Order: sequence, then structure tokens, then C-alpha cells
Amino acid sequence: MNKHELIDAIERADQAINQRNLAALMDFYEEDATLVIEPGRLARGRSEIAKAFKTIFDFFNQGLVVTQRDFHIIEGGGVALVVCNLKLTAEGRESSTVSMERQPTYVFRKSEDGDWRCLIDNSYGADVLNMRRSTG
Amino acid sequence: MNKHELIDAIERADQAINQRNLAALMDFYEEDATLVIEPGRLARGRSEIAKAFKTIFDFFNQGLVVTQRDFHIIEGGGVALVVCNLKLTAEGRESSTVSMERQPTYVFRKSEDGDWRCLIDNSYGADVLNMRRSTG
Repeated sequence: MNKHELIDAIERADQAINQRNLAALMDFYEEDATLVIEPGRLARGRSEIAKAFKTIFDFFNQGLVVTQRDFHIIEGGGVALVVCNLKLTAEGRESSTVSMERQPTYVFRKSEDGDWRCLIDNSYGADVLNMRRSTG
Repeated sequence: MNKHELIDAIERADQAINQRNLAALMDFYEEDATLVIEPGRLARGRSEIAKAFKTIFDFFNQGLVVTQRDFHIIEGGGVALVVCNLKLTAEGRESSTVSMERQPTYVFRKSEDGDWRCLIDNSYGADVLNMRRSTG
């Protein structure tokens, strides 16, 4: 089975994250995309998303490493839904290591230039239901 | 907080399922929508989706009841991602009852007539990763 070109886009984005290359990473997102920073907290549009990643990179002391696998892609109505497994590790300053696994959900659309771009980046998947912050 | 009009659309669809009203149910879907019948098996477009629901209704002996709650909606790039909790029960012919819970993922877009319609209906959510049928 041929590899879906959307997976190439995701792998390029992971590489951009792991190299802290914000300019390359922003090309992964549609101009009016939304990133779930944490359940209930969103970054809307490329400029807010870039700011959020800068904060995330700092939070992990520039040691964040993202790898993703098991991509399941469902296309319909001109968009594509992606479910996969994500592993996130970070080396702390005092050689402590953080490791997390998630099952993200992404929505993509093929842009006019032929590249797939992310419309919604929800790395928490269904966990948004279990981790909602109280807004009362 | 006002109820998102997308939730009304989902609740109308659930009512249509519970009343076996295929015509009303089809209005919930965009013409080129995709339904995940089971992981790895898709119905593409309204006509295949209607056929799939007819089979599902027969499979549950016209006793299927769907209820959904805890809708979490993330909008971006002109579409909306919905994650929620689904409960599915069915009374069998010999008064046996089947009950299942799932965390579906849906993608919606607002149509030109102002109604939200489903582009991708994946009632299995991230379980598509764990239940893939071998295709070897």
C-alpha cells in the first residue's frame, strides 16, 4: 500500500518540532487552523499557534521530541480525519525525562497548492472529554 | 452558555436513527460524506450510508437506541471536530439487551443553507486503531 501523502506532511511537521523550526512548522497549518493547547484552551490562526509552540518549546527546555505512528486516515466531504499514536519525550535540564503517550485527532484539507494542511490539531483526542478545565 | 447549533443537528440525527427515519437521517450528512461502518470498512456518499444504516437497523432487529452527551466542539479552518460520549442499546427479539459505549469523532461543515452537516462519521473514535481488520 502506498504511503498517504498526508503522513509525509505530519512527519515533516514532527521533524520541524524536533528541530524547533517554527517557520517550517507553520507551513503545516492552514492560516485559520486551530490548535488545542490543552483541553479548553485553543490557539486560533498561525500567529497564535506559533506563539503557543514557542511557549511549549520553552516549557520543555528545548528538549521536546515527538514521534507518531499507526496513522489511520478517513477521507470524506473534502477533508481527512487522522487518528494515530503519539509519543512525546523531553529531556529536562537535570537529566530528568518526561514521557507521554496520546491518541491525537487531526483534521486536514488539501490546499490549492497541492499540499495537505492541518485545520484542527487536537493532540489530546478524546481525552478532551476527561480533562476539561472547570470554567465556572 | 448557549447550546451550539451543531448539537441540535446531532440530536435530530439520533432521533431519526431511533425512529428509523432514513430520509431525515440522510439530511444530516453531506452528499460526499463518509461513515465508518466498522474500522476499515467505509460507506462513501449518502446512498451507501443509507444502505449501511438499513443493514444496521436490520442487524439490531429495529431495536437500536442511540443517545449522546458531553459534546466537545473544536472549530478551525471552516470545519468543526466533535468528540462526545455515545451509548447504544438494542433490545433483541428474545428480550436480550445489547449495550455499548463509544467515544465518537465527527467532522462537520456549515452548509450554504446554514445547516451543519456531517462530513466524516467515525463513531469508533480512536478505537479504529485498536480494532483494525487485517487486510493482508
